[in-house]
Amino acid sequence: MAPRAAAAILSIGDELALGQTLDTNSRWIADRLFSLGVRAVEHATVSDDLGDIRDALGRLGERAGLVVCTGGLGPTADDLTRQALATLLGAALVEDGDAIEHLERWFAGRGGLPSINRVQALRPASGAALENPNGTAPGIRVRDERRGAEIFCLPGPPHEMRPMFERFVAPFAGTLADGVTRARLLMTFGLGESKLAEILDDLMDRDRGARGLPVVGTTASLGVVTCRIRATGPDADSATAALNNAEREVRERLEASNAGGIVFAARDVTQSGAGETKEALAQTVVEMLRDRGERFAVVESCTGGLVGGAVTAIAGSSDVFVGGWQTYSNDMKNAMVGVPDEVIAEHGAVSGVCARAMTRGALERLAASGIRADHALSVTGIAGPGGGSDDKPVGTVWIGCASRKPEGVISGEARRFVFKGGRGAIRSWSVNTALGLLRLRLAGTEMMLLGEQERELD
Amino acid sequence: MAPRAAAAILSIGDELALGQTLDTNSRWIADRLFSLGVRAVEHATVSDDLGDIRDALGRLGERAGLVVCTGGLGPTADDLTRQALATLLGAALVEDGDAIEHLERWFAGRGGLPSINRVQALRPASGAALENPNGTAPGIRVRDERRGAEIFCLPGPPHEMRPMFERFVAPFAGTLADGVTRARLLMTFGLGESKLAEILDDLMDRDRGARGLPVVGTTASLGVVTCRIRATGPDADSATAALNNAEREVRERLEASNAGGIVFAARDVTQSGAGETKEALAQTVVEMLRDRGERFAVVESCTGGLVGGAVTAIAGSSDVFVGGWQTYSNDMKNAMVGVPDEVIAEHGAVSGVCARAMTRGALERLAASGIRADHALSVTGIAGPGGGSDDKPVGTVWIGCASRKPEGVISGEARRFVFKGGRGAIRSWSVNTALGLLRLRLAGTEMMLLGEQERELD
Repeated sequence: MAPRAAAAILSIGDELALGQTLDTNSRWIADRLFSLGVRAVEHATVSDDLGDIRDALGRLGERAGLVVCTGGLGPTADDLTRQALATLLGAALVEDGDAIEHLERWFAGRGGLPSINRVQALRPASGAALENPNGTAPGIRVRDERRGAEIFCLPGPPHEMRPMFERFVAPFAGTLADGVTRARLLMTFGLGESKLAEILDDLMDRDRGARGLPVVGTTASLGVVTCRIRATGPDADSATAALNNAEREVRERLEASNAGGIVFAARDVTQSGAGETKEALAQTVVEMLRDRGERFAVVESCTGGLVGGAVTAIAGSSDVFVGGWQTYSNDMKNAMVGVPDEVIAEHGAVSGVCARAMTRGALERLAASGIRADHALSVTGIAGPGGGSDDKPVGTVWIGCASRKPEGVISGEARRFVFKGGRGAIRSWSVNTALGLLRLRLAGTEMMLLGEQERELD
Repeated sequence: MAPRAAAAILSIGDELALGQTLDTNSRWIADRLFSLGVRAVEHATVSDDLGDIRDALGRLGERAGLVVCTGGLGPTADDLTRQALATLLGAALVEDGDAIEHLERWFAGRGGLPSINRVQALRPASGAALENPNGTAPGIRVRDERRGAEIFCLPGPPHEMRPMFERFVAPFAGTLADGVTRARLLMTFGLGESKLAEILDDLMDRDRGARGLPVVGTTASLGVVTCRIRATGPDADSATAALNNAEREVRERLEASNAGGIVFAARDVTQSGAGETKEALAQTVVEMLRDRGERFAVVESCTGGLVGGAVTAIAGSSDVFVGGWQTYSNDMKNAMVGVPDEVIAEHGAVSGVCARAMTRGALERLAASGIRADHALSVTGIAGPGGGSDDKPVGTVWIGCASRKPEGVISGEARRFVFKGGRGAIRSWSVNTALGLLRLRLAGTEMMLLGEQERELD
């Protein structure tokens, strides 16, 4: 059952309206609201224009009981959300004491609160300032009594907006929902989205919601395919029971296709970030290694440090991540992890032999320095746009993974992929695939990974 | 002067409204319209709901002389754009002969035109079908006489929509524009947005556009503050002249405040991708080093590889980027770049002494291996959420930068910052600040960087 309670989303900013910046907030908010049982009936984007903002707020407040608005809370003359609210509600703007305190703390040690920033503490008299731990702009919550709408204004930067949504908007949205919706994400790596859709088949039918059945959808991002399962019921228990049943059915179908091993995480969508799947694979790898008391290192060529960057995005990754080398040049591969010059001369830096020499050399170098590491990942490839050949087209990436057995023997492998897309996509796919490969190794699952073209073992 | 001719953009689809899919069409269309001298005053997104689509089309037609709408032209029951147009205009839908022919050609050799797809050839009697060479859905152009708006409906897939926009919408938009608009971005690093706004002062006044003067706005992202300058004139030459004048004025004000050195890039906004500033700082650093024939290396602790990741996002960065080390643990700092254990014991890994030892050790280690590197960057800090103390709160980051003089002498410095925000924000600020510090050094500009708290030289 699709949620019936209605919300509207407003994005404010010249840079958005004029197309200089892509608005990612509206999609994120709509997705989060849906998980909370509230349906976004409209998104609107307007310029930094007082009349336009006021009109949009009024119109959306007539359509929906909840209006979530982002942007226009900065300190400069083109930040007009506060004035637009005041005009809409015919209310005076007052300085919020807590907000001023927050701003003073923020600027303490930076020369004190600049006078221009004081305006950020203003809010309509009947409203409340919403604390923003990650920026200067407090949010505003205010009720539009005339239209019967609750308005939340949040700052535009996603890393400020998202935690504030969770803390302030999500609880209110929950009170609007007519029934309880529960959502769960099953995150997978290893199969393409269309293959997964084939396996899930009728579980993905769009009309299941109307028939009171849980709905399954998929989204794909750089190799990570997420199944979103949503179930609605009159109360939390029945919604959760329906969700559990649906999850079981999804897992059974995957098992029946010998693909049970692709699920690397299951997460209830109750709090932050239905869209926050970017770090999930790294999180899983960090947790698996921590459970085993093991550590790993990286040797990165075409990713230039992004595998380490993805792993260290996880707080506490220092328990399991030693560090590594960015061997962006051949002489670094040779000097730092001992890839023999002959290997590069004979096979090229983008080869399975090189990828395997990188992981083996890393584990040996670390052992020689008395640094314990149980596994190593290597990435070497052609991210483009130049550097490709018929033999090794742009997108060709070798990923190596090696482990040190307790008795000191090193065994490893390398797999060749040909990723599609631009330089950024090829590098991001490489990062996820490297983590996916380590995860498979840790899980003891033998399977071909998405798009794999060749494999070398040693 | 901002363009006065107004357009509105409507995106149609449940997957967009409910936040399952990110709408990239609206930004692209708004950006293209702006380049053509037409200002998008509003974007709206609505669900596959007949009444919602009709109401949105009507409302936007009252605001703007041009409405560009994407989506809802497929063959299935939830594709309702055609019916919404007919209802709005009180017009009958007729089958377009050319459109039927196109569909028949499209499906020839694929088993013939499925009956479900015939509906795609429908258009309001007074409208025209727009040829779609890349898909089944023809577009529709129709005039809403009552509201004085020209409505263009295009299919949702970007590779179908974009060529149709260029062929059908762009020429019409050109007839609306009352002048030619030019825009330029001046990208800066080193000052906060509010400080910059103080310097630019009246240049940022919102009413300058109405007075025929170029308009300056700012946007900030992780320390990079971009000044957007827009100018409109009766023809291209006068618009460009006005833009050049405005840029000169911005630069003069910055110079007068001893902040001329913060501008690291100037880019004309002519075609797609005005918002692509994420890699601009790395791009500038790569270009400066290439011009000087120099190379650099990194030693990363709390960023775990992200500085290298940012640099290698730039194609051709291998000319100037050697690689480096992810020294995520103390033993890696010691074993790989020779940070003395005493330094860490006495000052901690998050200290200026350690940051300086990291860059010096890197340059020495590379020289000893016969690898030429002229500069090294180091980052060591507390990204949180744990690990902070009163003395060194979460967000404390030391960034080191050292250079090898031709005679082999190494000189360097380290600066301490306390970045705000969550783990991700602190790390991203660290990456930009490291690149910003190297850029200052290469430019020979002596200035305090944004938020800098302390500096050690050697």
